[in-house]
Amino acid sequence: MAYELYYWPTIQGRGEFVRLALEEAGADYVDVVREAGVPAMMRILEDPDRPRPPFACPFLKDGDLIVGQTAAILLHLGPKLGLVGEDPDDRLWTHQIQLTIADVVAEAHDTHHPVAVSLTYEEQKPEAARRAADFCRNRIPEYLSWFEHVLSRAGGAHLVGGRLSYADLSLFQLVDGLLYAFPKTTAAVLRELTQVARLHDSVRQRPRITAYLASPRRLPFNEQGIFRRYPELEA
Amino acid sequence: MAYELYYWPTIQGRGEFVRLALEEAGADYVDVVREAGVPAMMRILEDPDRPRPPFACPFLKDGDLIVGQTAAILLHLGPKLGLVGEDPDDRLWTHQIQLTIADVVAEAHDTHHPVAVSLTYEEQKPEAARRAADFCRNRIPEYLSWFEHVLSRAGGAHLVGGRLSYADLSLFQLVDGLLYAFPKTTAAVLRELTQVARLHDSVRQRPRITAYLASPRRLPFNEQGIFRRYPELEA
Repeated sequence: MAYELYYWPTIQGRGEFVRLALEEAGADYVDVVREAGVPAMMRILEDPDRPRPPFACPFLKDGDLIVGQTAAILLHLGPKLGLVGEDPDDRLWTHQIQLTIADVVAEAHDTHHPVAVSLTYEEQKPEAARRAADFCRNRIPEYLSWFEHVLSRAGGAHLVGGRLSYADLSLFQLVDGLLYAFPKTTAAVLRELTQVARLHDSVRQRPRITAYLASPRRLPFNEQGIFRRYPELEA
Repeated sequence: MAYELYYWPTIQGRGEFVRLALEEAGADYVDVVREAGVPAMMRILEDPDRPRPPFACPFLKDGDLIVGQTAAILLHLGPKLGLVGEDPDDRLWTHQIQLTIADVVAEAHDTHHPVAVSLTYEEQKPEAARRAADFCRNRIPEYLSWFEHVLSRAGGAHLVGGRLSYADLSLFQLVDGLLYAFPKTTAAVLRELTQVARLHDSVRQRPRITAYLASPRRLPFNEQGIFRRYPELEA
């Protein structure tokens, strides 16, 4: 049975980390909301009879099982898609890396929404300017340096165990998003962090990823997603 | 061999979710930094030869394995401490709840640090006031209502599978922290959400938790931690 991914149909957002794993594995999946519309998702999220509802999207339907939280979805999918090693310690470490990527993603989101998700960016621009300045000055270098260290210690080509894992795909997406949102800062940081830059390139060149990125299934970055290019935030 | 927990020695913070699990299980553990000081932690975090360094604390040393990220630590400890069911779907669901708790904790932190962790609260007070107002008005009710729904659908006493799990302990800690930081808001919300209020009470009354909370091992809440009481933030 095909996996069913439920996520907002007009942004990459957190759903993209799941899409990349499904695409790299050549998995049979349906991006449900893009085909059937948002009500198909809200019916599940707002169903009062559902005993284990996700708090938010993205969520994955795998037969009768529904899994929310991006990192938990990948924890579940990793072994099934062959995107994580067999060793339990490798699996836990892969997940730990994924959770750290999730932390950066949340911070990237808050550069344009530091006050409230219920307000627009325009309603929190002064706060966003301060938060984005700190994110560029401190957080992008701190986080990407940690990934550089992990890659270097693992031999450079992959984050975990000398083989492709969903964490590699997610790090590609994180770097891709940062290059979109904060191109000057990220490019400058990547000139120093050559292993991270190389992993970003090598994932992009994987045949299935290349095909996916060129397909209409890959939504473009835009200013409704998590990674947004507001030039005034990268002063 | 005793588990070794590494976390800041003067705050509950994210370490507290791990401490509660270890205490409830009666596990043999050392709160290393409280005994040996911060350098014992920094030696591990800053060791350039360590192939799998945590990005930040808390982290747990279990023999040769080091695990960072609070939710990943509990994913690892849950089965070993008997604080999660045997069923794989129950385990994934417990973890999914834990990740949602982690999201609330991050948002609670950002009520006093909406701009940058590298700045003091005093350097971001206007931004904090706006963020905290939204957190109290929207986010506390949204999140706690979701936990209420999950508890109600699971029969009320526990979040998952009719038995105690680390997610119950973590929800206790989340509610305890919110009651400290935003007492009026949280008390008002809990008057409606009786299952969440009851779970908070019942965890507190578990013998090992009661003993722990009365011991010097339980640090008091304070204004260096994640949950801080700044009355001006709860207008």
